[in-house]
Amino acid sequence: MEEIDFKTLTPYAKNFTGLTEVHEALLVEVGPMLKPSLGEVTERFYSTLRSIDKTAPFIEGRLESLKQTHRKWLEGLFTGPFDESYAQSMYHVGQVHVKVHLPVEFMSGGMSLINDELIALVCKTFSDYPDRITALLKAINAVTGFSLLIMQQSYQSSSLSAELDRFLAITGMSRSLFNNLAGAYHN
Amino acid sequence: MEEIDFKTLTPYAKNFTGLTEVHEALLVEVGPMLKPSLGEVTERFYSTLRSIDKTAPFIEGRLESLKQTHRKWLEGLFTGPFDESYAQSMYHVGQVHVKVHLPVEFMSGGMSLINDELIALVCKTFSDYPDRITALLKAINAVTGFSLLIMQQSYQSSSLSAELDRFLAITGMSRSLFNNLAGAYHN
Repeated sequence: MEEIDFKTLTPYAKNFTGLTEVHEALLVEVGPMLKPSLGEVTERFYSTLRSIDKTAPFIEGRLESLKQTHRKWLEGLFTGPFDESYAQSMYHVGQVHVKVHLPVEFMSGGMSLINDELIALVCKTFSDYPDRITALLKAINAVTGFSLLIMQQSYQSSSLSAELDRFLAITGMSRSLFNNLAGAYHN
Repeated sequence: MEEIDFKTLTPYAKNFTGLTEVHEALLVEVGPMLKPSLGEVTERFYSTLRSIDKTAPFIEGRLESLKQTHRKWLEGLFTGPFDESYAQSMYHVGQVHVKVHLPVEFMSGGMSLINDELIALVCKTFSDYPDRITALLKAINAVTGFSLLIMQQSYQSSSLSAELDRFLAITGMSRSLFNNLAGAYHN
């Protein structure tokens, strides 16, 4: 893994997505009430992905294992901690997305679908507590945004690095020659 | 602008973010109730961006013009239409982000902060109509997700293309030589 300073990235990503300590505490607090329904969220998420021509082939043949990983991640959103090692795991997911050639839009599209399911679930579960709904939806928006931001920063970095590899392979140029030329180039 | 098939991209992005015709109609319907408060959403959005070290320099000296553009875009989310020409305008925003060297995470971070403000606004405005809150928050999540997806697909494409330009500049290789080599290369 490239050297990433997660001590800097984690608070930056939290500030940029509005993930506060109050949000984190609330997510963990409501965990026991929401977790029993997260399996349905995962089911509907993959059911939608299977209905889209471009996403379906990426799921084919590995649906059960994907669902398990997804559900575990969803439960983590209501378990915590949302620390540097969580940031590191989301960074790893971004790298894996590049490695298995998932198109860039799968990340934000997926997160929209997940948020859609969670909005419905929260509004239903806490229908008698409107203030709680507002606070919790803000917290969920923040934690999914936090996860997405880190995953995408990683995806971008990995895809540029893969592009350099492709360029070197196509041109037959060595990495050290390219690095020397890059060092000499100023623009 | 590179050749993008917006007739294909638009419905794909809608499916992937759950943006339905029912959502679109609802967004337009509530427009008159929410638009008077969108100025405050923009104010708070830029106030947060100014408080983050990494984003502040990008705003410096152009705050008023950025706010105007931002507010106009926000109003568009409650005006429509969410058609191919809207998709094209979001695609253009992604290209501009690359051109002015905005880091990739500014897109998802920004959209998280905007959603955070809109959740608060909707829950407050429609506090007596809980069913409306659920439907409207799902619609807002979908339309911001739709916008983000298209912007990011464009950003990715533009940044890979900028990276190729950088390789060519550094190595002094002509584009036609590179294209010939790429054509001959199979992996």
